[in-house]
Amino acid sequence: MPLNKQIMLDRKPTGKLTVDCFRTQSSPVGDPGPGEVLCRTLLLSLDPANRAWMQGATYRGEVSAGTVMPGFTLAEVVASNDIKFKAGDLVEGDGGWQQYFIEPGKRLQKRVRREPLTHLMSVLGITGKTAYCGLLDIGNPQPGETVVVSAAGGATGSIAAQIAKIKGARVVGIAGGADKCRWLLDELGLDDAIDHREGNVYAALKAACPTGIDVYFDNTGGPILEAALSRMNLHGRIVCCGVVSQYDTANPASGPRGVPGLLVTKRLKMQGFIVMDYVGLLAQAEKDLAQWTADGRIKVVEDIIDGLDNAPAGLVGLLAGDNRGKRMIRVALD
Amino acid sequence: MPLNKQIMLDRKPTGKLTVDCFRTQSSPVGDPGPGEVLCRTLLLSLDPANRAWMQGATYRGEVSAGTVMPGFTLAEVVASNDIKFKAGDLVEGDGGWQQYFIEPGKRLQKRVRREPLTHLMSVLGITGKTAYCGLLDIGNPQPGETVVVSAAGGATGSIAAQIAKIKGARVVGIAGGADKCRWLLDELGLDDAIDHREGNVYAALKAACPTGIDVYFDNTGGPILEAALSRMNLHGRIVCCGVVSQYDTANPASGPRGVPGLLVTKRLKMQGFIVMDYVGLLAQAEKDLAQWTADGRIKVVEDIIDGLDNAPAGLVGLLAGDNRGKRMIRVALD
Repeated sequence: MPLNKQIMLDRKPTGKLTVDCFRTQSSPVGDPGPGEVLCRTLLLSLDPANRAWMQGATYRGEVSAGTVMPGFTLAEVVASNDIKFKAGDLVEGDGGWQQYFIEPGKRLQKRVRREPLTHLMSVLGITGKTAYCGLLDIGNPQPGETVVVSAAGGATGSIAAQIAKIKGARVVGIAGGADKCRWLLDELGLDDAIDHREGNVYAALKAACPTGIDVYFDNTGGPILEAALSRMNLHGRIVCCGVVSQYDTANPASGPRGVPGLLVTKRLKMQGFIVMDYVGLLAQAEKDLAQWTADGRIKVVEDIIDGLDNAPAGLVGLLAGDNRGKRMIRVALD
Repeated sequence: MPLNKQIMLDRKPTGKLTVDCFRTQSSPVGDPGPGEVLCRTLLLSLDPANRAWMQGATYRGEVSAGTVMPGFTLAEVVASNDIKFKAGDLVEGDGGWQQYFIEPGKRLQKRVRREPLTHLMSVLGITGKTAYCGLLDIGNPQPGETVVVSAAGGATGSIAAQIAKIKGARVVGIAGGADKCRWLLDELGLDDAIDHREGNVYAALKAACPTGIDVYFDNTGGPILEAALSRMNLHGRIVCCGVVSQYDTANPASGPRGVPGLLVTKRLKMQGFIVMDYVGLLAQAEKDLAQWTADGRIKVVEDIIDGLDNAPAGLVGLLAGDNRGKRMIRVALD
């Protein structure tokens, strides 16, 4: 058996996450126990939520220092003591930042192989399904409505914005940097783009959304949410998908002004969700997303970094907004 | 024709509302023009939202200084140039703080007389229907769930709390003062009560809701909302009905921490509404509320003040939480 390279969260960050919060170790690859499956990691997902897990319990338990950094993975079964899996099967699960992992079979989902494999982690993975379920179930954009998406150049935002276009909405993306905004217009075909690094998001939203905002797909929280709230139309919907502005800090800001006052006067709905809430919708989501991708109506944007050793820097950069589309680590390089 | 006593908003409050923001004048009662109806005010509703109208545009335009203070009224038709109304009809509409008013017929709704007439302004009026529609449509409490209601001794809160009991929930009321809390338990039959004036609402909610909160009916916003957010269960619903903690000030506070972070991790829904959004539900609401009142399952709590002159002090006191149940002014004293 080869050695298993693992990246540990060595200590919790006190402010912004830095690469020296992590350390690398190697351990022997063990044998799976009864009902367990030994897997080899192919792709590791990097997500802003990884940083939130270090802040405390979320939809999962808090990550403790001294443990393998958790993370969502696409992997190949090496050996299985669960009759539902056999060597060579493709599976997904929380394998963490390591080359091999052992999990009970019941915590793994089998995936059908597709090419490119990376799509199973982007448009056909949690990212794409999150965009699909949140936008369509909570946001429910109608033709002609105005949809605003924050972190629109990111993994989930880039898909949510394109689905909103497919549904006939006018779509405005918010992203950091002029280049990224240009790319939102030229490559993703959005109707307008706002560079939040230029300041005054409120004024920019007012200019970009002259008839107000009907659906706001929020990946950021914080001041961008506050600005969007003030421009929402009556009966608008705010899809609370993530809070990336608040993850990489020890002191999350206070909430946006206008909550709950504007919710009442404008009769707004704000709703949070995670993709696991939509078990009944996932098959349809994958079918639609695959079709739209095949039709060229969704451009899949992936930001693939080779090598597990690059995961810490990859996450730090992701939190700074370096990525375009879905950032992932190709762990198995052969 | 008699003179029409009117209470004007003389100047906008800069901080807390005081009675000297108002002045009284008398004008001749005019004649209704084409399509208009002359009405004599019987009852005037006092609502915390009256103060919010002075802060800026809400679901209605901002109230300007130098105009008759607006307010919801139950009135009797004196003379009508609209064929849908005749003298003696009972109507409701925004008649304002005055003894007589003239409105276009299309802005009035006819009401069927019931005894006591005051019920048309409390349990069978906007207050009761607001509680009904918001709690049942947005909150949707299930038997055995825990429902928390803020301003539970108030007009809307006292009805919302009792409807939640009827639906089989465990109901915890939040109110200001030990007496009011005792009364919530003894008179309204709530399961527990929290006096927010004692401080630490967070700890009190933790103690009173050992299994967490499923539905929070929020009349207050501010720190009470922030405390409730932290105790919400997965998939909890927050009914945003009002923001009384933020109305009587020139400087509304920042929003609650945990928005949107907790909305995501706990998959919460927060939704604002006003009763006019539920046109299709109002007939059923009135039927159910009348039945529950007749059955004694809802205790109707009314706080009736005689005389239009007492409206300014009545509103100032309402904003300080002096009332129990629905505060209204009996304008026609004969």
